[in-house]
Amino acid sequence: MTSPSEQRGTQAESVTRLIEAFSRLPGIGPRSAQRLAYHVIRVPQEETRALANAILSVIDTVQFCSVCQNVTQTDPCPRCALPVEDQSIICVVEEPLDVVAIERSGAFRGRYHVLHGLLSPMDGIAPENLRIRELVERLRGGAVREVIIATNPSTEGEVTAMYIQGLISPLGVRVTRLARGLPSGSDLEFADAVTVARALEGRTEF
Amino acid sequence: MTSPSEQRGTQAESVTRLIEAFSRLPGIGPRSAQRLAYHVIRVPQEETRALANAILSVIDTVQFCSVCQNVTQTDPCPRCALPVEDQSIICVVEEPLDVVAIERSGAFRGRYHVLHGLLSPMDGIAPENLRIRELVERLRGGAVREVIIATNPSTEGEVTAMYIQGLISPLGVRVTRLARGLPSGSDLEFADAVTVARALEGRTEF
Repeated sequence: MTSPSEQRGTQAESVTRLIEAFSRLPGIGPRSAQRLAYHVIRVPQEETRALANAILSVIDTVQFCSVCQNVTQTDPCPRCALPVEDQSIICVVEEPLDVVAIERSGAFRGRYHVLHGLLSPMDGIAPENLRIRELVERLRGGAVREVIIATNPSTEGEVTAMYIQGLISPLGVRVTRLARGLPSGSDLEFADAVTVARALEGRTEF
Repeated sequence: MTSPSEQRGTQAESVTRLIEAFSRLPGIGPRSAQRLAYHVIRVPQEETRALANAILSVIDTVQFCSVCQNVTQTDPCPRCALPVEDQSIICVVEEPLDVVAIERSGAFRGRYHVLHGLLSPMDGIAPENLRIRELVERLRGGAVREVIIATNPSTEGEVTAMYIQGLISPLGVRVTRLARGLPSGSDLEFADAVTVARALEGRTEF
């Protein structure tokens, strides 16, 4: 019973555009996007401007470190610029958030390399779309002794790990990967079959 | 094992600020905010700029209609400016999204009034924080015959409806509310007790 023009009449065009922009973000459906848009309209202007400026600010201030490819405000990034303990070991991860996760563990003291994605032929993501060439370049110097491939234990993560392993093994670098097994604090009874199988395969001596 | 300064080193300051800005949005937790921020960094600059501009654009183009208080690009809003069928009936809703929901039903042909919230003494939301005064002003002209209070069937919605009903009944305006009952397509067996009770109370003749 309502015509499109009447429907339009109930929602300003700039609001429609904002809803569309929000719904392009990952994990934001059409309903959440609508709710976010009306939230932004309702809150004080300063808060809305702060959000827009924070978004614009990352464009202007953030770049990729020419060494590790992580997101940074300075190039090289603070981590690559400072002489940290172990420069002979590089941990390869999919994305910047993985660096944060590994740092949180406090168990790694080397350098990082961020791929910015995983190989996925189905989605058209080939080696040249990732920062793999940059990783190989870093190994040419000969200072790196070990590369830990810390991609996710998913199909894409495994494929990417195997591809990189094949590429850098000939360079005489030790290539390792994160251990598979039971997550800390979990219950064997509820673990999935693949996890249990990997925990058995990777069993260690006391 | 990681010091705060090292943690900072793994994440640029502008990224931290963006994560904070995203996590102030409703329904966005710290992890989603982190994911959104790194998404914004990864996508092409034009897309990031489009999002920021869409946010800034609503500040510049959107205002509240001086008649119905809905969000609009022109004042009065298109709906209030055009002579629609029935100007003698006003549907009072909590927020702009409720107008969209009622328009979608195609079952209402009158005017709207948006309160921009519900009374909530616990949250410090009093009548003067809502657009209730503006509603009473609209009724002074004497052209309005009926006010449908379409607030949500929640505690705050009920309290707000009762408050408005008490305020405008003396003005000689008919005050109605949306029917309570079984939602269309639902199953009596699975309906909650309050819904069934309201459906019985509000039973109608064939």
